[in-house]
Amino acid sequence: MTEILDGKALSKTIKARIAEKVKQIVAEGGKKPHLAAILVGEDPASQTYVNSKEKDCKEVGFDSTVLRLPASISEKELLDKIKELDENPNVDGLIIQLPLPAHIDENKVIMAVSPEKDVDGFHPVNVGKMILGLPSFVSATPLGIMTMLKEYGIETKGKNCVVLGRSNIVGRPIANLLSQKSNPGDCTVTICHSHTKNIREITLKADIIVVAIGISEFLKGDMVKEGAVIIDVGITRVADASKKSGFRLLGDVEYSTVAPKASYITPVPGGVGPMTRVALLMNTLKSREQRIS
Amino acid sequence: MTEILDGKALSKTIKARIAEKVKQIVAEGGKKPHLAAILVGEDPASQTYVNSKEKDCKEVGFDSTVLRLPASISEKELLDKIKELDENPNVDGLIIQLPLPAHIDENKVIMAVSPEKDVDGFHPVNVGKMILGLPSFVSATPLGIMTMLKEYGIETKGKNCVVLGRSNIVGRPIANLLSQKSNPGDCTVTICHSHTKNIREITLKADIIVVAIGISEFLKGDMVKEGAVIIDVGITRVADASKKSGFRLLGDVEYSTVAPKASYITPVPGGVGPMTRVALLMNTLKSREQRIS
Repeated sequence: MTEILDGKALSKTIKARIAEKVKQIVAEGGKKPHLAAILVGEDPASQTYVNSKEKDCKEVGFDSTVLRLPASISEKELLDKIKELDENPNVDGLIIQLPLPAHIDENKVIMAVSPEKDVDGFHPVNVGKMILGLPSFVSATPLGIMTMLKEYGIETKGKNCVVLGRSNIVGRPIANLLSQKSNPGDCTVTICHSHTKNIREITLKADIIVVAIGISEFLKGDMVKEGAVIIDVGITRVADASKKSGFRLLGDVEYSTVAPKASYITPVPGGVGPMTRVALLMNTLKSREQRIS
Repeated sequence: MTEILDGKALSKTIKARIAEKVKQIVAEGGKKPHLAAILVGEDPASQTYVNSKEKDCKEVGFDSTVLRLPASISEKELLDKIKELDENPNVDGLIIQLPLPAHIDENKVIMAVSPEKDVDGFHPVNVGKMILGLPSFVSATPLGIMTMLKEYGIETKGKNCVVLGRSNIVGRPIANLLSQKSNPGDCTVTICHSHTKNIREITLKADIIVVAIGISEFLKGDMVKEGAVIIDVGITRVADASKKSGFRLLGDVEYSTVAPKASYITPVPGGVGPMTRVALLMNTLKSREQRIS
């Protein structure tokens, strides 16, 4: 039997818990968590993401601020704006929507946010602490995946886990987290990428596969063993005239052939996506709580 | 044919290059690189390590300072001493010999050294930057291993690499470095540890094996395939009445059975050890050069 890892339902449950916690903070005379986001330019995807984050904040009772800046803004001006929000004691979490216009140095921008307010977990201090197993903000997608594994009670200890993709925001952190002495964790982890040879031979031995390779329907049924746990991070829009929207969404997993063999599998959409969204709220709440204590 | 990865000889070559570079800096009116070390307490192994570092500095023409402090020093006093050396513009690299007495918080001490002077590469900022592929100080053992692979021209791209051990100072960084888009790098990396099952099945497929598991002679000949590259990080003293010193040194690799099958192998002693020592000098020189530019 294949069980669907329902990120939509789980994220709803977690949002309800967060909303409850916010009420409690306020009842105790505290201030609501406050997420501030900076959006530079008019990229439609970025606008959609930021709007979703605003909506999510509202849903759980967080305060939110979105600072919309023109694509023409200079790096210096942007850094000044970041400093201002970062120093605002009323702000608990500060994120800068990526990508940024080409004339702005992304690394400088990431370094300009204090690690204590970096709820995206992009600052090297947070990355380093995560790697060292110290308390830190873990970026949203890996945190969402770890939360999903934990909440579904999926056994990871001693399991053979294969991560497809070595990006700094998904593949690499999830590979490190799953190989740590923790629960979820304690997996034997293999990290694969574009230079990996015989990838099928590797995935066929995996108990858990995390696919974050950015190629739609890359993982096929003949690449996985019976009973594997499948986490699909990919999301690609494909034109589809039969749909009202004109497109459909595909993951990095060929669902029709992989799902019948899997013990657990995330759908696309409705799997890792909603978990990523709720993970940002979890981090913002955590930041608020750290400021209280 | 098995080729010995001669860390002793290679480190000598690199030391000569560093000494040459120091002469050049001085000839141009610059100041010698300066490594400062803090040693707390009387641990004999720590004293030996610090003495070696002092000797290495002398050999390449670096200035060095060793601050020896009593084990009874308070955390606050130690942090003050660190601050003093860290702020001294004459100091390029600052290291605190570990372990520290139990009443001192190691993480606090590590965080007290500026990332720009943290030539041990222990600060979370340096760990995070290394993980993100940004310029950073990489800690001595992984840097020594990467340097050895590079200098011997060992092809790593697309190779299947297995790392035994997930420590923060060896296994985890080397696993991350070897899986990065770089040269050496671009390996498919599997990280194994105490919870890994069927370890022999995994090592038998490896083109490169890095053993940093802390169990002497753990890796045996029947666990490696013909032509594998073997990097042995382990070092254990074993009583041996036939030796003048009363002991002999063993690695984590059973050399007698593994070496005949290996294409390249590091001996113990004389392999990774000397490369670790020279890597600290490389980092200190790099710090000096960054201060010049």
